[in-house]
Amino acid sequence: MSGAASALRDTATRLDATDPLRHTRDLYLPSPGLVAYLDGNSLGRPLRATAERIADLVAGAWGTRLIRSWDEQWMDLPLRLGDRIGEVCLGAAPGQTVVGDSTTVMLYKLLRAAVAAAGPQRPEIVLDTENFPTDRYVAEGIAAETGAELVWLEPDPAKGVTPDLVAGALTGRTGVVLLSHVAYKSAWIADLPEITRLAHEAGALVLWDLCHSVGVVPSDLDAHAVDLAVGCTYKFLGGGPGAPAFGYVAAHHQERLRQPIQGWMGHAEPFVMGPGYAPGAGMRGFISGTPPVLGMVGIEDTVDLIESVGLDAVRDKAARLGRFVIESVDGLLGDHGVRVVSPLDDELRGGHVTLAHPRFREVYRVLWDRDVVPDFREPDGIRLGLSPLSTSYGEVAEALVMVDEVLRAG
Amino acid sequence: MSGAASALRDTATRLDATDPLRHTRDLYLPSPGLVAYLDGNSLGRPLRATAERIADLVAGAWGTRLIRSWDEQWMDLPLRLGDRIGEVCLGAAPGQTVVGDSTTVMLYKLLRAAVAAAGPQRPEIVLDTENFPTDRYVAEGIAAETGAELVWLEPDPAKGVTPDLVAGALTGRTGVVLLSHVAYKSAWIADLPEITRLAHEAGALVLWDLCHSVGVVPSDLDAHAVDLAVGCTYKFLGGGPGAPAFGYVAAHHQERLRQPIQGWMGHAEPFVMGPGYAPGAGMRGFISGTPPVLGMVGIEDTVDLIESVGLDAVRDKAARLGRFVIESVDGLLGDHGVRVVSPLDDELRGGHVTLAHPRFREVYRVLWDRDVVPDFREPDGIRLGLSPLSTSYGEVAEALVMVDEVLRAG
Repeated sequence: MSGAASALRDTATRLDATDPLRHTRDLYLPSPGLVAYLDGNSLGRPLRATAERIADLVAGAWGTRLIRSWDEQWMDLPLRLGDRIGEVCLGAAPGQTVVGDSTTVMLYKLLRAAVAAAGPQRPEIVLDTENFPTDRYVAEGIAAETGAELVWLEPDPAKGVTPDLVAGALTGRTGVVLLSHVAYKSAWIADLPEITRLAHEAGALVLWDLCHSVGVVPSDLDAHAVDLAVGCTYKFLGGGPGAPAFGYVAAHHQERLRQPIQGWMGHAEPFVMGPGYAPGAGMRGFISGTPPVLGMVGIEDTVDLIESVGLDAVRDKAARLGRFVIESVDGLLGDHGVRVVSPLDDELRGGHVTLAHPRFREVYRVLWDRDVVPDFREPDGIRLGLSPLSTSYGEVAEALVMVDEVLRAG
Repeated sequence: MSGAASALRDTATRLDATDPLRHTRDLYLPSPGLVAYLDGNSLGRPLRATAERIADLVAGAWGTRLIRSWDEQWMDLPLRLGDRIGEVCLGAAPGQTVVGDSTTVMLYKLLRAAVAAAGPQRPEIVLDTENFPTDRYVAEGIAAETGAELVWLEPDPAKGVTPDLVAGALTGRTGVVLLSHVAYKSAWIADLPEITRLAHEAGALVLWDLCHSVGVVPSDLDAHAVDLAVGCTYKFLGGGPGAPAFGYVAAHHQERLRQPIQGWMGHAEPFVMGPGYAPGAGMRGFISGTPPVLGMVGIEDTVDLIESVGLDAVRDKAARLGRFVIESVDGLLGDHGVRVVSPLDDELRGGHVTLAHPRFREVYRVLWDRDVVPDFREPDGIRLGLSPLSTSYGEVAEALVMVDEVLRAG
């Protein structure tokens, strides 16, 4: 072991010992054999409480109460849990957030609603080439079917999607601005307040994708007068594989905006089952079909945990973990030519850090074989997901030391 | 206890003792306190194996393998599980069935695809007023957005949706026929082969909703050249509350049909994450977002169980349970004026029987209070869901005896 590696581990040990969130790591299920998990921004780890509550749900609410659980708790769960996410993570007053569908489907529904509300005089959707594929693909599909026009921004890798970049694309024809709050590859945090303000000044709606920010970077949707948002719950919100998305529609838009997928669960009177669709009031009308209940348990537990420690503490640790990575790259990996492609400024960086090196495709495979699990992103990025509630500095150190070893081994 | 009630219980005991599927009831989790569960056609009971496998999934594939499970098993799960449903329940060769979304969303996707494929010269969607609300609401929404025209059939309560009724609505302008295989209220089985043949003769596509038939009534989609189908997995397929839907697209249509919700999981190369959506080949292109994995475990287990006993044996017991209800109504409930509103002919009746009486709204509430759980359907129906793998004749007898008692008590 090199001196630099040894020093890094010592630093990590010290940081873990004084970490204000050190107690939350033990709340997660153990992962036997795993050395370091740095992909919590793709699939978050399950809480012990979630494992217990899912077992209880299968035996109890499902297995014993059976259909009665819909009356007793599940019919309103998408709205109740939406409100909890809104309260704890989004700065959203009750009645504006709902849980259901996949992120792709929820995005489709809200973007279709926004495009229709913007009207034919404002056919342009402003979006960027570095957004997550689903956002781009959904927008392409909607453009093809509605006649909306896509205005593509090309973010400067050294700046992300800036207000200036967006401002340059806004015209009297802009209907909707669709952007990610935290960029999935680079972790750039967009200036949500200023971009929202600019879009409104131009008469457009904003739809923020919060997939990579919810649960780790506050978004304060109400305070910044955001129109629409969607996000994912299987990353920092602990819902488990394929857990449902959430959607946010500002209260003052709910009467006007209509989503296109009219199902029985979104009807004003679901159990009358009468002729003719009439959307339920508020966020009820943004539900389509029956939502996946098993995938909501982990979200409830994780939101409770975030509330108990405070989202600001989570955000603070995300920044510190990121800083630890960045400073470690200087000392340990700089000689290999490893570059940090995420923002260096803590204020501008979300809950992950992406490093780049021409050999990282191969390195990442070796890491996985040795139970160190980051993510790989084309063409040459290793993305280190830093889940503040479950990730230790020690894990990060082990991953970086192993990257060094593999690069050294040639 | 009346003599008729006593005789009914004796008959039930005898039928349970000789039931070829009596061993499968013990494979389900117990439901402490429950007297009779007759709503398995709304939410099926969980298998013991499913409870164990979900716990294993949370600790293992999710909690330990974590993101690696996507590579190891989940990326292809929607297609693999779709193939299993197709093989065991639908008479569908591999590569035509996929699992994901809610039934509402899957129906929206396939109906949009069908309407587009039918083209503007065939704008009419033929559907019936007794179909499940989501089917009607989705079709209304699609008509409003695409200019499709809805042609409503009014089924005769004494006949259901007959080939004659459908034939009378087919013209050179018919694009799609959207019907349920088994009617959710009455349990009428539509003549799927003949209606499909008639639709094709008229140059239209058929989209069958199999929600109330899959897992209890064979549909033989390939043999009857069905174009498209959707169905639900939380009823007879045991997926649990809000488990994902399945969709079927006949192989020869897959190249031509395009669904509108373009997400990363349906892309030809999901992990390249490049610019421009290109739908994956075959059923991959009908996936949108990340599917709910926890909701798939129960489906796998239930499909395995159906395969092990044979779908024909399940179908046979459904018919026998229904016959037991119908014959019991004559002896026990006929004096109260209770009517059977489902088909009397076993060949024409799906996996539930609906009884009607002016006081059933009140009776149903009393039943629920006494842990006898059927479903209520407006305006005056008690729907007895008969899940052949988990429902005993004894349960059915208890429910009928209690209906008699409550009606007697006035």
